[in-house]
Amino acid sequence: MRRVLIRVAYDGTGFAGYQRQVTERTVQAVLEDALHALHEHPVATIAAGRTDAGVHATGQYVAFDTDRMTIGMREMPAAINSRLPVDVRVMSAREVASAFHPRFDARLRHYRYRLVVGTHTLPHLRAYAWRVREMPDVDRLNADAAAFVGTHDFTTFAARRKDQTSMVRTVRYSHWRRSGEHLEYAIGADGFLWHMVRSIVGTLVERERLQLRGKPPEETIGTLLAMGERRRAGTTAPAWGLFLHDVEYEQ
Amino acid sequence: MRRVLIRVAYDGTGFAGYQRQVTERTVQAVLEDALHALHEHPVATIAAGRTDAGVHATGQYVAFDTDRMTIGMREMPAAINSRLPVDVRVMSAREVASAFHPRFDARLRHYRYRLVVGTHTLPHLRAYAWRVREMPDVDRLNADAAAFVGTHDFTTFAARRKDQTSMVRTVRYSHWRRSGEHLEYAIGADGFLWHMVRSIVGTLVERERLQLRGKPPEETIGTLLAMGERRRAGTTAPAWGLFLHDVEYEQ
Repeated sequence: MRRVLIRVAYDGTGFAGYQRQVTERTVQAVLEDALHALHEHPVATIAAGRTDAGVHATGQYVAFDTDRMTIGMREMPAAINSRLPVDVRVMSAREVASAFHPRFDARLRHYRYRLVVGTHTLPHLRAYAWRVREMPDVDRLNADAAAFVGTHDFTTFAARRKDQTSMVRTVRYSHWRRSGEHLEYAIGADGFLWHMVRSIVGTLVERERLQLRGKPPEETIGTLLAMGERRRAGTTAPAWGLFLHDVEYEQ
Repeated sequence: MRRVLIRVAYDGTGFAGYQRQVTERTVQAVLEDALHALHEHPVATIAAGRTDAGVHATGQYVAFDTDRMTIGMREMPAAINSRLPVDVRVMSAREVASAFHPRFDARLRHYRYRLVVGTHTLPHLRAYAWRVREMPDVDRLNADAAAFVGTHDFTTFAARRKDQTSMVRTVRYSHWRRSGEHLEYAIGADGFLWHMVRSIVGTLVERERLQLRGKPPEETIGTLLAMGERRRAGTTAPAWGLFLHDVEYEQ
């Protein structure tokens, strides 16, 4: 047996999220079906993380054990892709140690969130960017975004899951970049809480919207983080602007 | 009556092209259905140009005459959009002279073509960029692209239509830009022939592919243009990487 780590990209539009559910179409079910077909027996997988319904990925990582010793790592993506629907693709594959775990061994996770500014939605972006009406001040967005860098309790900026023990995460970078009418938020952290990126983006966009109406926010991001109260944050930005961009591992 | 010019964006994926056909789903039919519903009688439209099946637009322009004098130009997009499917959107509207013609009065048309470099297709880009396996040399692509600027007979780089009289067009700019694994070709001209952008892109990508295999092309782009023989050009790049970006008018 060999443990294989694949980098997986998907268009989240047609999925009820990553994690397998009983009746809904999920990325995990579609992947495991393809692996089942390739191996001619069921194959269990472990992913770097779950993504919600509508969230996309260019760099999700999934591990599984294979007894198909004749398939090389260069051939593996095509072997799986030929059994996958077009909205999921294996981008690359490599062999990892048998104890490797894509969630616990992740060192850094990268997410991207895309905004497009305009009065009406560009159809080809309708499932891949959140449309906001007014162009935000990118310098002000970046001043807010920088406040998330470091080790913080993210209770204010996350939805709580029953199985969640610690709300503390370390953010390595957090910034916005503008290109014409497009804005992209980039964030990297050791881990993310449920709805964390979408809460951050929703809050920053809402603060900026109020600023543009001459209502500067009462609290700084630092104060909001310190409060640890979910209701202090703004709305949760929609799922379809979010991309699990990449995950980094030690080995 | 007032003549209205609307800027229309669409995701070409679900359409058999712009122009109305008897049985297929087309952008024109969907637009005229929405205008019919809004006006409660049939409304004829004239577009800046036709786009093929799968080709997208962020800036197609369509004119029609309206007797709905109470709808302002600021309200017009929303009034039409509420009757359109999500893959077509009216981005803006303005009143134009009654003799205005979106095709004949166009001064400059802008197209964009998107490439993404990689071994496997990123699912969220599968309908919006042409995937090529190897990263081209952008300087070499740009040297080739520059040769299209000016007034030329584009017979080599276009499919002939029965109704086509002149094959001469004037290209104002033609260049490539790279951002990571993404490449975008931008071209502006007084007019375009059928498959012109896709023939140019297909040829440039093919020349570059041969270059990377140590086979520099025998002819320059200037020579190919002068030959005026369609079979001298390379393949036609796929429709789904192409965007009708914008059209400029005098008034």
